[in-house]
Amino acid sequence: MSKGLFITIEGGEGAGKSSLIGLLANTLQHKGRSVVVTREPGGIPIAEKIRGVILDTAHTTMDARTEALLYAAARRQHLVEKVLPALQDGHIVLCDRFVDSSLAYQGYARGLGMDEVWKINEFAIAGVMPDLTIYMDVSPEVGLSRIAQNEVREVNRLDLERHSFHERVREGYMLLLDQFPERIARVDAEQSPENVLNEVIDVISRRFAGL
Amino acid sequence: MSKGLFITIEGGEGAGKSSLIGLLANTLQHKGRSVVVTREPGGIPIAEKIRGVILDTAHTTMDARTEALLYAAARRQHLVEKVLPALQDGHIVLCDRFVDSSLAYQGYARGLGMDEVWKINEFAIAGVMPDLTIYMDVSPEVGLSRIAQNEVREVNRLDLERHSFHERVREGYMLLLDQFPERIARVDAEQSPENVLNEVIDVISRRFAGL
Repeated sequence: MSKGLFITIEGGEGAGKSSLIGLLANTLQHKGRSVVVTREPGGIPIAEKIRGVILDTAHTTMDARTEALLYAAARRQHLVEKVLPALQDGHIVLCDRFVDSSLAYQGYARGLGMDEVWKINEFAIAGVMPDLTIYMDVSPEVGLSRIAQNEVREVNRLDLERHSFHERVREGYMLLLDQFPERIARVDAEQSPENVLNEVIDVISRRFAGL
Repeated sequence: MSKGLFITIEGGEGAGKSSLIGLLANTLQHKGRSVVVTREPGGIPIAEKIRGVILDTAHTTMDARTEALLYAAARRQHLVEKVLPALQDGHIVLCDRFVDSSLAYQGYARGLGMDEVWKINEFAIAGVMPDLTIYMDVSPEVGLSRIAQNEVREVNRLDLERHSFHERVREGYMLLLDQFPERIARVDAEQSPENVLNEVIDVISRRFAGL
């Protein structure tokens, strides 16, 4: 394999993306593959600076479109400085969230419009789409209760959104599944981590010979 | 007039935009109009922060698309926090550069593509286009020699681009003039400031009754 493989992991809060990515990276490395695990802004100084502007609590007047453009800018820089070089070096890149998160969260759940948010992300990625996207499907009830029990991680600002917001995020992802059935594979993330991993490995083996 | 008027001033380096805007604001104020003069990032803290990321000299790896997205983000925030409120209050807003600058400089002269750069700016402005755009047309020879003689302002990074870059910026503006003849008015900016002002006032009077 002269070129790497770009795999993104998507899902709502409490889907268990981080756990899966850790297990998956291990498994692929045991098969002798070189794996790069990343998530935006990925330690890229320019992308970190942009994220700092987005997350600054003093920025209470930030418009939703400004925010979406900033996410797209950080995505672009992370892609150019980290993802593309790793792919060119032949690594498997496992990326925690990518364009689909913006489409589901900002485009659909926040109501900016998926087509609108796609426009700016299309500009940001300039044709670089994931070879495969794993959508870890979990109901908001299960996902949020996992976080409440601290099984997954600490509670953050997004977790505190109303239940209907998380339902809309899931609906957004379902629309993306319908739209990109070739690229996105849904995995039932309410199973045990081991079963989720096995399902994901099955998907990867079926899609990519030799993996 | 219950609603304001949004007028943008465009042009290459050394066209004399600032001088015109000062004279024009004065003239309109003498006619009893309330005028707001602005330019991005316009003192809007979020937009200033974004501009800080763009201009940080440490950011030598900044990708051209990242930069274009950041400009669009700063534009959005300046529009929402400064331009739109001023228009709603019935002011005439004179804005030094707007979307056309991104289209001419980044889209055309830098080669990102005008259609591409338009996509992200369309998202940023969400339908708010200028009521009128004055394009101050000057040849690179005249514009750059004005700056060299410090008639206009200090030399900046853009002035030092190769001559062909400034020619391309002008070509980009010409394409925009062809595309939006209703919105953009070309003014010969090689005339004296007084003649430029008179021509601009003529354009404004013809377009907007009572001005």
